[in-house]
Amino acid sequence: MINSLGRFVPERVEPYGSFSPYAGAFARQTGAFTGQAPARPFIAPRMGYDKVTRSIREAVERSGLRDGMTVSFHHHLRNGDAVLPVIMAVIREMGIKNLTLACTALTEAHACVVDCIRDGVVTAVHASGLRGAVGRGISTGMLGKPALMQGHGSRARAIQEGSLSIDVAFLGTPTADTAGNATGSCGPSACGSLGYAMIDARYARHVVAVTDNLVPYPLSPRISIPEYLVHQVLVIDSLGDPAKIASGTVRYTRDPLQLSIAESAFKLIRASGLLAPGCSFQAGAGGVSLAVSSFVHQYMKEQGIKGSYALGGITGHATAMLRDGLFESLLDVQSFDAAVASSIHEDPRHMEIDASAYANPFVTSCAVNNLDIVVLAALEVDTDFNVNVVTGVDGGLRGGIGGHADTAAGAKLSVVVTPSFRDRVPVIADSVLSITTPGETVDAVVTEKGICINPRREDLIALANKARLPIVDIKALHREVVSLTGKPDPIEVDETCPVALVEYRDGTIIDTVFKVKE
Amino acid sequence: MINSLGRFVPERVEPYGSFSPYAGAFARQTGAFTGQAPARPFIAPRMGYDKVTRSIREAVERSGLRDGMTVSFHHHLRNGDAVLPVIMAVIREMGIKNLTLACTALTEAHACVVDCIRDGVVTAVHASGLRGAVGRGISTGMLGKPALMQGHGSRARAIQEGSLSIDVAFLGTPTADTAGNATGSCGPSACGSLGYAMIDARYARHVVAVTDNLVPYPLSPRISIPEYLVHQVLVIDSLGDPAKIASGTVRYTRDPLQLSIAESAFKLIRASGLLAPGCSFQAGAGGVSLAVSSFVHQYMKEQGIKGSYALGGITGHATAMLRDGLFESLLDVQSFDAAVASSIHEDPRHMEIDASAYANPFVTSCAVNNLDIVVLAALEVDTDFNVNVVTGVDGGLRGGIGGHADTAAGAKLSVVVTPSFRDRVPVIADSVLSITTPGETVDAVVTEKGICINPRREDLIALANKARLPIVDIKALHREVVSLTGKPDPIEVDETCPVALVEYRDGTIIDTVFKVKE
Repeated sequence: MINSLGRFVPERVEPYGSFSPYAGAFARQTGAFTGQAPARPFIAPRMGYDKVTRSIREAVERSGLRDGMTVSFHHHLRNGDAVLPVIMAVIREMGIKNLTLACTALTEAHACVVDCIRDGVVTAVHASGLRGAVGRGISTGMLGKPALMQGHGSRARAIQEGSLSIDVAFLGTPTADTAGNATGSCGPSACGSLGYAMIDARYARHVVAVTDNLVPYPLSPRISIPEYLVHQVLVIDSLGDPAKIASGTVRYTRDPLQLSIAESAFKLIRASGLLAPGCSFQAGAGGVSLAVSSFVHQYMKEQGIKGSYALGGITGHATAMLRDGLFESLLDVQSFDAAVASSIHEDPRHMEIDASAYANPFVTSCAVNNLDIVVLAALEVDTDFNVNVVTGVDGGLRGGIGGHADTAAGAKLSVVVTPSFRDRVPVIADSVLSITTPGETVDAVVTEKGICINPRREDLIALANKARLPIVDIKALHREVVSLTGKPDPIEVDETCPVALVEYRDGTIIDTVFKVKE
Repeated sequence: MINSLGRFVPERVEPYGSFSPYAGAFARQTGAFTGQAPARPFIAPRMGYDKVTRSIREAVERSGLRDGMTVSFHHHLRNGDAVLPVIMAVIREMGIKNLTLACTALTEAHACVVDCIRDGVVTAVHASGLRGAVGRGISTGMLGKPALMQGHGSRARAIQEGSLSIDVAFLGTPTADTAGNATGSCGPSACGSLGYAMIDARYARHVVAVTDNLVPYPLSPRISIPEYLVHQVLVIDSLGDPAKIASGTVRYTRDPLQLSIAESAFKLIRASGLLAPGCSFQAGAGGVSLAVSSFVHQYMKEQGIKGSYALGGITGHATAMLRDGLFESLLDVQSFDAAVASSIHEDPRHMEIDASAYANPFVTSCAVNNLDIVVLAALEVDTDFNVNVVTGVDGGLRGGIGGHADTAAGAKLSVVVTPSFRDRVPVIADSVLSITTPGETVDAVVTEKGICINPRREDLIALANKARLPIVDIKALHREVVSLTGKPDPIEVDETCPVALVEYRDGTIIDTVFKVKE
């Protein structure tokens, strides 16, 4: 099938099921689209059974995991995560095969998944992002079918509606009590919010809270996942490497080019008029995004503007803005560094929200849909403002969707910040290799060579002109960039070998990633 | 059918469905009982729809409420609740008929339900308790079928497994934001925990948050019900009478008889050895129960015992114990007075839990099942230790199951405190009129005439003897009481007219309440 953006997408891929082609960012959000979450079997538990075990093998056996089932993990422990590696190692030893691995993201910490795929232990993958060795491996077609890439809102929707049905969730929980009440806000492997894990816990058939910090019942004062959703508490020596758990993808920048892009983005945001009392704001943890946050921080402080909430992916910078009184509260679905864990533990205005509250498009409302301003990164942007955050210059899988598509669709102003080219390859392309976020939902692209505003946003163009900002036509910018870098060789792909499907937040397929021809 | 306690119970009653007879307190808790929660349809919402309305009629219309559906309300606003009366008045005006009214409890504030039943607006009732005019009305058989009485754990179970399927939940929420994030911990009608409402919010097809304190998005710092579960925010002038919201059924006692019962109960608890570091405790809000709490409070303070948690039904007294450092935390499913609302708002160790976390027997675990000690009241107890908390001396419906059966089944020590007779009628009966809590789960009955210990608890009898407590055989006590009061005239009931079914926590029917012959 060809979707409304002209991309080839499949109708059905096992074991994921049937798909509809993407038909517009809000095509399923008119109030007319309905569905049915499936029936869920349950077992009334034996009174007084002991949930705690110290044997991974025993936990896997008790979970009833068998060939062909779906297991889930989260990435709140970032690049320090040891939970997936140690659990999957035992599953592999036990000879269980043909699993669907449903991860919120696969990171540098998850290289072992390559071996699991090679051995047939894992034969299908759901993830918002595929980084490192797993991304490279899946890019070669080794899975034998495409991975299904789902952003954070999409995953929450899929779990709720049952299109992603998790048999066993192994959830790293930095502190848990003997009954399974659990949190990420304290313990030696503290990671902050457990927002993504909270959804898996609510819907998986069997939930294992994996911890290295078992505390007496009841956990207090913060329970992120309540006991009644947890079937087993598995105590292991360590959830991972605290140094790598503490530092995620957060990077502060001193690069003059990045700072100049950030300053332009800030000026556009200021010109939009949205940076006013009661405003809400999200920015990622990339260098330019953080620099935009710094400009916003300074401006709000100078002007005495108190915003409503910062959302996301919460960085130490956002917690500083909370402490400075620049926001009433933080809504935290995922924390980016260790400073955040202490803030969420100590400051009640720093609120933990689950992935549905963050971005699920099929619940009655979610925080991204209330957002005023979002600042986003990109690997590639095309002249229709479509954004690619999943494939790199070589056409291979890297990066991830995260909340990119969700926030772009929900926010009043979505600003993509990016240099116009990287390593002599244009970022501003004629057509992106992979569409993850439709141009329909992207309001502006800010580069070091000026600001491109989506022609749909005449209001924003007028405001930017009034503020005398350097607006450039995105097609002209593309031509300028190509005149500098030269036209890059087109990436030739093997259309018989899809390696990833990119699911839009509403469950439709927005693009297919194919294997690159060697 | 006749159940394992010899009570006549029906196999099927519309619209509630089919029932199994009670077969023992733990018959379904061996790990073998399975079921299936039904499929749940959903509608993907229109982007950016406005949830707020100030018209009750509009809210009812938008909810899609029609003849024959099920509506739910909670009783967290206690005797001050105006939510049910004002909503039901509009529903009645609109001519909607044949509704099933699924309330967590019907109180003195809900006399209007009698008119709704008379007019055919309400034709079936679920409630944990039926007090005041509604109790009297339903006792006459005016419903034309029995009400279904479900304790707190039973209701959570029924909602989760789908045997109670709520079409529209009208949830009084003392503070809510424009997207429906809601809490009971602040606002002019603050009521404390929204533990029962939290379950309705998660499972009802359509959820209306009814508030008199609309705040900007996002509500902070405590969200009890997240926005994504809420379909509409209905703003009304007042949720009720703050004076009556503030005071529930809490009654301190200076009655020497009650104090002597309380002291005996405390001595039994002390003798049990359970009042040790890390202990957990629940006591109701009745006069004797509160007096027991006072003795326990004083003892823990003197002995320097720090307990783990107090559970329930949280009173101002429990919050004082938290402040005095006698418990690590409070787990609060329902708050009994206004002091509690400020505690839950300000002290993070005072944790709000939902009804499943409190007492749902079919989830992996719940707080009552971890409880050491519970102190419970009774309207009537029989020589098999069966307890009645739903029918009074005249055989009419009053009181309610609440968490009685749940805590009795879950706690290591369940102590019923009661005078041996009231108004010249024996409380210690040969056979209770209505069984709500099976004797199998009741460890001791403490009266002013001594302590009766369940013969199953030989260990407890030995400990009580060692402490030289005045143990009496319950049959002997019954004979003694009858010799004082005279044998009361038996209550003659009309077995062709069941007025209430008493559901045990596992969904089986433990007893039927019949209309009393005039």
